[in-house]
Amino acid sequence: MATIVGSPLPNMPWEERPATGSDVVWRSSRNPIIPRDLLPDSNSIFNSAVVPFGDGFAGVFRVDNKKREMRIHTGRSQDGVHWQIDPQPIEFITAAPELKPCEYQYDPRVCWLEDRYYVTWCNGYHGPTIGVGYTYDFETFYQLENAFLPYNRNGVLFPRKIGGKYAMLNRPSDTGHTPFGDIFYSASPDLCHWGCHRHVMSPTRRWGWQSTKIGAGPTPIETTQGWLLFYHGVLTSCNGFVYSMGAALLDRDEPWKVRYRATPYLLAPWELYECVGDTPNVVFPGAALTDAPSGRIAIYYGAADTVTCLAYTRVDELIAFVKANSES
Amino acid sequence: MATIVGSPLPNMPWEERPATGSDVVWRSSRNPIIPRDLLPDSNSIFNSAVVPFGDGFAGVFRVDNKKREMRIHTGRSQDGVHWQIDPQPIEFITAAPELKPCEYQYDPRVCWLEDRYYVTWCNGYHGPTIGVGYTYDFETFYQLENAFLPYNRNGVLFPRKIGGKYAMLNRPSDTGHTPFGDIFYSASPDLCHWGCHRHVMSPTRRWGWQSTKIGAGPTPIETTQGWLLFYHGVLTSCNGFVYSMGAALLDRDEPWKVRYRATPYLLAPWELYECVGDTPNVVFPGAALTDAPSGRIAIYYGAADTVTCLAYTRVDELIAFVKANSES
Amino acid sequence: MATIVGSPLPNMPWEERPATGSDVVWRSSRNPIIPRDLLPDSNSIFNSAVVPFGDGFAGVFRVDNKKREMRIHTGRSQDGVHWQIDPQPIEFITAAPELKPCEYQYDPRVCWLEDRYYVTWCNGYHGPTIGVGYTYDFETFYQLENAFLPYNRNGVLFPRKIGGKYAMLNRPSDTGHTPFGDIFYSASPDLCHWGCHRHVMSPTRRWGWQSTKIGAGPTPIETTQGWLLFYHGVLTSCNGFVYSMGAALLDRDEPWKVRYRATPYLLAPWELYECVGDTPNVVFPGAALTDAPSGRIAIYYGAADTVTCLAYTRVDELIAFVKANSES
Amino acid sequence: MATIVGSPLPNMPWEERPATGSDVVWRSSRNPIIPRDLLPDSNSIFNSAVVPFGDGFAGVFRVDNKKREMRIHTGRSQDGVHWQIDPQPIEFITAAPELKPCEYQYDPRVCWLEDRYYVTWCNGYHGPTIGVGYTYDFETFYQLENAFLPYNRNGVLFPRKIGGKYAMLNRPSDTGHTPFGDIFYSASPDLCHWGCHRHVMSPTRRWGWQSTKIGAGPTPIETTQGWLLFYHGVLTSCNGFVYSMGAALLDRDEPWKVRYRATPYLLAPWELYECVGDTPNVVFPGAALTDAPSGRIAIYYGAADTVTCLAYTRVDELIAFVKANSES
Amino acid sequence: MATIVGSPLPNMPWEERPATGSDVVWRSSRNPIIPRDLLPDSNSIFNSAVVPFGDGFAGVFRVDNKKREMRIHTGRSQDGVHWQIDPQPIEFITAAPELKPCEYQYDPRVCWLEDRYYVTWCNGYHGPTIGVGYTYDFETFYQLENAFLPYNRNGVLFPRKIGGKYAMLNRPSDTGHTPFGDIFYSASPDLCHWGCHRHVMSPTRRWGWQSTKIGAGPTPIETTQGWLLFYHGVLTSCNGFVYSMGAALLDRDEPWKVRYRATPYLLAPWELYECVGDTPNVVFPGAALTDAPSGRIAIYYGAADTVTCLAYTRVDELIAFVKANSES
Amino acid sequence: MATIVGSPLPNMPWEERPATGSDVVWRSSRNPIIPRDLLPDSNSIFNSAVVPFGDGFAGVFRVDNKKREMRIHTGRSQDGVHWQIDPQPIEFITAAPELKPCEYQYDPRVCWLEDRYYVTWCNGYHGPTIGVGYTYDFETFYQLENAFLPYNRNGVLFPRKIGGKYAMLNRPSDTGHTPFGDIFYSASPDLCHWGCHRHVMSPTRRWGWQSTKIGAGPTPIETTQGWLLFYHGVLTSCNGFVYSMGAALLDRDEPWKVRYRATPYLLAPWELYECVGDTPNVVFPGAALTDAPSGRIAIYYGAADTVTCLAYTRVDELIAFVKANSES
Repeated sequence: MATIVGSPLPNMPWEERPATGSDVVWRSSRNPIIPRDLLPDSNSIFNSAVVPFGDGFAGVFRVDNKKREMRIHTGRSQDGVHWQIDPQPIEFITAAPELKPCEYQYDPRVCWLEDRYYVTWCNGYHGPTIGVGYTYDFETFYQLENAFLPYNRNGVLFPRKIGGKYAMLNRPSDTGHTPFGDIFYSASPDLCHWGCHRHVMSPTRRWGWQSTKIGAGPTPIETTQGWLLFYHGVLTSCNGFVYSMGAALLDRDEPWKVRYRATPYLLAPWELYECVGDTPNVVFPGAALTDAPSGRIAIYYGAADTVTCLAYTRVDELIAFVKANSES
Repeated sequence: MATIVGSPLPNMPWEERPATGSDVVWRSSRNPIIPRDLLPDSNSIFNSAVVPFGDGFAGVFRVDNKKREMRIHTGRSQDGVHWQIDPQPIEFITAAPELKPCEYQYDPRVCWLEDRYYVTWCNGYHGPTIGVGYTYDFETFYQLENAFLPYNRNGVLFPRKIGGKYAMLNRPSDTGHTPFGDIFYSASPDLCHWGCHRHVMSPTRRWGWQSTKIGAGPTPIETTQGWLLFYHGVLTSCNGFVYSMGAALLDRDEPWKVRYRATPYLLAPWELYECVGDTPNVVFPGAALTDAPSGRIAIYYGAADTVTCLAYTRVDELIAFVKANSES
Repeated sequence: MATIVGSPLPNMPWEERPATGSDVVWRSSRNPIIPRDLLPDSNSIFNSAVVPFGDGFAGVFRVDNKKREMRIHTGRSQDGVHWQIDPQPIEFITAAPELKPCEYQYDPRVCWLEDRYYVTWCNGYHGPTIGVGYTYDFETFYQLENAFLPYNRNGVLFPRKIGGKYAMLNRPSDTGHTPFGDIFYSASPDLCHWGCHRHVMSPTRRWGWQSTKIGAGPTPIETTQGWLLFYHGVLTSCNGFVYSMGAALLDRDEPWKVRYRATPYLLAPWELYECVGDTPNVVFPGAALTDAPSGRIAIYYGAADTVTCLAYTRVDELIAFVKANSES
Repeated sequence: MATIVGSPLPNMPWEERPATGSDVVWRSSRNPIIPRDLLPDSNSIFNSAVVPFGDGFAGVFRVDNKKREMRIHTGRSQDGVHWQIDPQPIEFITAAPELKPCEYQYDPRVCWLEDRYYVTWCNGYHGPTIGVGYTYDFETFYQLENAFLPYNRNGVLFPRKIGGKYAMLNRPSDTGHTPFGDIFYSASPDLCHWGCHRHVMSPTRRWGWQSTKIGAGPTPIETTQGWLLFYHGVLTSCNGFVYSMGAALLDRDEPWKVRYRATPYLLAPWELYECVGDTPNVVFPGAALTDAPSGRIAIYYGAADTVTCLAYTRVDELIAFVKANSES
Repeated sequence: MATIVGSPLPNMPWEERPATGSDVVWRSSRNPIIPRDLLPDSNSIFNSAVVPFGDGFAGVFRVDNKKREMRIHTGRSQDGVHWQIDPQPIEFITAAPELKPCEYQYDPRVCWLEDRYYVTWCNGYHGPTIGVGYTYDFETFYQLENAFLPYNRNGVLFPRKIGGKYAMLNRPSDTGHTPFGDIFYSASPDLCHWGCHRHVMSPTRRWGWQSTKIGAGPTPIETTQGWLLFYHGVLTSCNGFVYSMGAALLDRDEPWKVRYRATPYLLAPWELYECVGDTPNVVFPGAALTDAPSGRIAIYYGAADTVTCLAYTRVDELIAFVKANSES
Repeated sequence: MATIVGSPLPNMPWEERPATGSDVVWRSSRNPIIPRDLLPDSNSIFNSAVVPFGDGFAGVFRVDNKKREMRIHTGRSQDGVHWQIDPQPIEFITAAPELKPCEYQYDPRVCWLEDRYYVTWCNGYHGPTIGVGYTYDFETFYQLENAFLPYNRNGVLFPRKIGGKYAMLNRPSDTGHTPFGDIFYSASPDLCHWGCHRHVMSPTRRWGWQSTKIGAGPTPIETTQGWLLFYHGVLTSCNGFVYSMGAALLDRDEPWKVRYRATPYLLAPWELYECVGDTPNVVFPGAALTDAPSGRIAIYYGAADTVTCLAYTRVDELIAFVKANSES
């Protein structure tokens, strides 16, 4: 049976599956846990990232303000459900003045790696690319070089070195609402220079929900059976994009090799808060908390590009589901 | 006064027009009659077709599963409102192995013709075309040759031969979310080879709701005044397609000649279940039940590409409306 | 402190800001004040214009009927909130037979100028352009020449001559769902011939809500600090256009010079009636009533291209907000 | 060794391969054999079809006039190189008045079948579809029903029944400059009703010259090794479409099965008359003459959508080339 | 018989129709009369305008330099064939500083009107619109207000007032390589304010060479039978736009009424210098010289957006051709 | 005066500027030096790279074969003008099996760096990216990891380390005929991992010939005044892309800083072999030979995506030209 290779986190948010449900992933009854107007100036708070921190939780949050600027903010929570978000965007300290003028920042991920919390996000530098930074305390943030050339989105670090190098999933893109997109894997000796790029997986015409493009979601979760990857898939309806969430199991040592990939989605826009908002029909996972002993997983996801939500699953059930619904 | 040329069907679903309403077509108070999650694995159930069968009703249903595969399933109902749908897609028996690999099947119609129930649907064979099959019992289904070359959608059989040949309305298309589309009429001596294609009607720039494309809905209803055709029309807003339902009266002997065509729509997306879902703003009629003596008509339609709904009208009122609102 | 240069209008619609709110513009609790089905034949009533008239109010309303024809109708109200709308579209009297065949009319504005009420609207004449007409009594309407060549939309007159000429804001467009659009200023000695076109302002890539196109809303409001202009801005999401409302302060003598322009929006689609409807996610201001002594402003706006709504603000607060949130 | 299953035609046009060349297909030194201005009113004469007739040759020619109307004309020649073309377009006699109004006619093929010459062409009937007609004498022409629904192009008859039915290759299309296109096979008992549609072959991303779309050229040539099909393939450069000519060998009894398909092109736009003209970079084969005893083949092709040209090959060399350059 | 209402110009360029030709318009044997590299810095010289001046000729020329900036230059010639072009672009004197920064200027026309030479051109002012200026001596040039709002191209003045007002043909456009375009007529009391816009003519799907867009060419030539208008029409091939030249006869008093319009083109890209260059396949007329007594007309046209050419016709033959080839 | 920092190369190809010319760059009188059919199977040979080798020259050549596969071949020449090209594509030896399946290879550059010849090219790996390899002898070639993630083109190495790292110019792209494109600079400690990406320059709307996209050409040439970069710029006409050649001078130590950039092009498609071919209107520089003592530069460029050509300049004249024609 699959177990999580990780630490206990007994205080993580949790709700049992509703008695009437049988889905392998279920929503929090408190959704949306972060409303769009939590800050006086916020237009929307979504596609955000959360990690355990101290005796509670910290995170980096995408906040679009009422100018519709895209910025990332830090936040704190005791229970992972109720959040205090800093009204000011993160100001990174960086040694490279060329990186300084911030065009935009969005869709952050946070990853505990070795001795600090790394933040990756979609960073505007002559087009969208992957910004990289770190913090020890969620108060002071340092910015490193952008990982890649434009145009890239959904850069997601692995929580440990693999094959002796740092590793990042990412999604080469174009300058706009990219109508294509595969997940790639890149490696780095120093978190500054990246190479050995490997193709991981493509959208599939056959499974409609992920037929246009795909992109990694939360930091991959190490399990005894491989890296558990939640990711989003996009369908193009005659009324635009529909974002759903799925899962795959990547090889533990060569994570660019997909061992299993569930053909059905795990979560798709059904609830009003997922179907109505700034971008209708979006479920976009960006972070997960795990409690290794119990196998509990809490997934943070953005809904309708407007609010932040929570969903739950258990690692053993989920991996059984992924395997049972995979095709070779 | 117009009457239906058909059989009695006293047990068909029926609700009177609400006291406060005056529209010629009105919604069921029980909408949506089929929820998207009726099956454990269903993402959505919509754009479906129903006929009287035995002392109740049977049908063929479009079910998109959570892989977002498009499949058609059979179903049964006592009252036409509460449905049991087979969790497995229809497996057609066919003699032509080239037709076997099923790419996708959607938007079925069912038509009682001579001695059996014919099913037509949008069938994936190197692009969308019109699949044709039949059943005697809604248990065993046989597949014939595809009626046409790709790319075609919305193939709808007439319930009897016309001019000595089988007849089908259809909508030539392209490979994607086709931004154009006229209704054509095709004839066949054998339900295998089709020809004598005639243009029936085009979208009209003037009546916005049907300005992008149009497509036949339920099996045409024979009346003393011609074939009553419900059809969908599509408007292109800056946020995508909007599907509404209208009606026309086709010549009884040369149905490619449009006698009357109502310029207003009969039903457009107003209710939340029509405006919110996998494809917002869709009303898509696919079947109708009629009771000739009373003139009652119950129309099954898909809403928001997500759920199945019912609406009602009376043939005399409706035809009067079509005539009164037609333009020469 | 900024004050309105205008008349008292003590009977204008008004509601105080909700106790829990702090936004500079707030919605009416009675929204939508005009439902889509106010007329038997109406599909939607929105993007409409209102002025004080007699001891109450009159207006010109965009009514799309169930043919999805776009027409403008006149209406009356005692309180500015409850409206009687003429079921018949306005029939203009015009001397130029070439202008007669009405292709379509939409998005009207009304402006009291010198001795009568001028109406401008988007008029179909081989493409969208700005129709101009007038009335003394909201019963008989006269049509003048179209102000401009196609393709133009959002023509908005100033309520007095400027520099000795009539003046109109407008938005050059293309033939479809124009994906660009700046506001221009044009002048005329006679309301027939127009020239001296000046560029006023462009969309801005930086403030996302107004990054695709912008267009003037209500008749500019003269204040001691310049012309207060409410306008709409459009963002292009992967699911289509999102319309929000913002404000700018134009130079009083040379109104093509923008003195201040608020970078955040004032109102964006948040409420269900703004997010769901014929065109999801639309807030489109078209008229404003003002009470000079109190500084009260009531803004009429279309929501979701479906219904008509009201929002409120105070001139001093608003202008302070615009100045405080402007960038040079 | 492959031989042609057909008649002798010793007087067919012929030139030996130039001494300096080694290509399997070579151009006529007299190209273009038909100039664009052969008729006083012609803008261009190209994409035309030729058959043996009497002691010489006859044909049907695409002539675009200086209105840029597309029409087909008949023509005669003693030697197959010098042509007299009727200045008037063909007037078809038809029993179906619905087919009468001629929108446009282009890209004809001619095929001797049983007892007469059949003509197929791209026929405008609410979009492009395949027109079918016949003549006994190239003076009187009769029009049958269109073979298919719109949208279709490049309909090419086989010169005998196959499996007891008439057979036609064709290319489903869309309404414009279709950016996709596969070759299909359709069968008919009566040349009026068509069915049993089979997919034959697709463009291939790998062989760039045929990566966008493909379409059948001359009437397939029966050989002892299968049906020899010349066809055009299209590449999309950053400056538009490039049309080249290739060849495949289809199964003799089930011609929808491709036995061999040469991966290189046989002829591509190299000469100035192929690279410069109304549509630069077009080589479009439409007819072939064959002399069975000698194996000589003369291919008529349109160049740059402007003029008509000739190229030559020998069946044994060509089929050897196709086999040697095919991939399974 | 039609005659030109105008002055003698015996020294205008002239060559008789080649003995072998029968076309109503024929090319100069000296084409291109202005090579692309006449100036040291010129990339191309085309789409230019010429008038009689003194005892010779003067003109305004579109010169794209090697930066590919589009500018207009003045030039002089004794014979209308050999030209000296000023290496510096025209510097206009203007009173309106807002008009000063020159984004680009192209496709000029020159028109003698009342007492001076007016120049109109496509002027970059927040998009392409119609610039207006004048000169008395082709040395000093004055710039007036832009005639219209963006987006407009091909503004062509009439050489006298009509109905008491100045008059201009023009072509509303969009921001790019506009894929549509009708000719309109606008009137002005003062050459500053314009109104009374009338639709003149549209592209026609039927006559392919003018099926995408059309635009006025030289200053209309007054004849006893109406205004003779040369104009360009555009066809969209799969490899881009093809520009040809046609002619129409407009009502003398109400020139927005088209009396005759030739369905064939008069000149289309056939010669290498018209088919090959910066924009292949362009024939673009911009000016004409006329000798009233003889009826001779010399047309200046740009070829392939690269060089300047001459063609000739006679007014009586031409008008006879237009009438004979017109359709009501 | 600017001089080249490099070696003598007295035997490089050279022709003096024609007496009649004054352009700073001039064409070889022997163009095209490599015809499209140099190899029996070649469709075109262009966009190729040349270096001094032994007592002559060697190179890597883009050869598209008649399947329209894109491959790179090696070649040798005594004089740099007459070439022997290997009929077989280069087979790289590589340790990473994931890189092995060759989708396509095109537009190579060759750079002598430290102790060997490095080859970079556009390499198909789930989209176009930059392949990197090396050879010592132009017989055996080794392939390293791709430098970047897709989608990238025009990767050009600097001939020495800069700031202690290897350096490469490159052009992030999309999956197709990319309609945008800036030049970036990336650095690497090991030619495997790349980072510290810096933006170098963008297309400019103002200088039309480089308004759509730009891309580095030959290996930058070190001069006493900075790195001399030849690059291509693209203009989008209504008939597609036009490629021209320009030059810039980059900072010697921080080459992402542009010191001078000539606003006019140096060479644009004028000759028939540049205007007519597989892609009309292409001048695409890919390599340069230099003789430091004399300052001679020979530039190899592809013409019309069909043939290979030569042009010449002198370093002092050229740099003077770049400076004189630059804008700050």
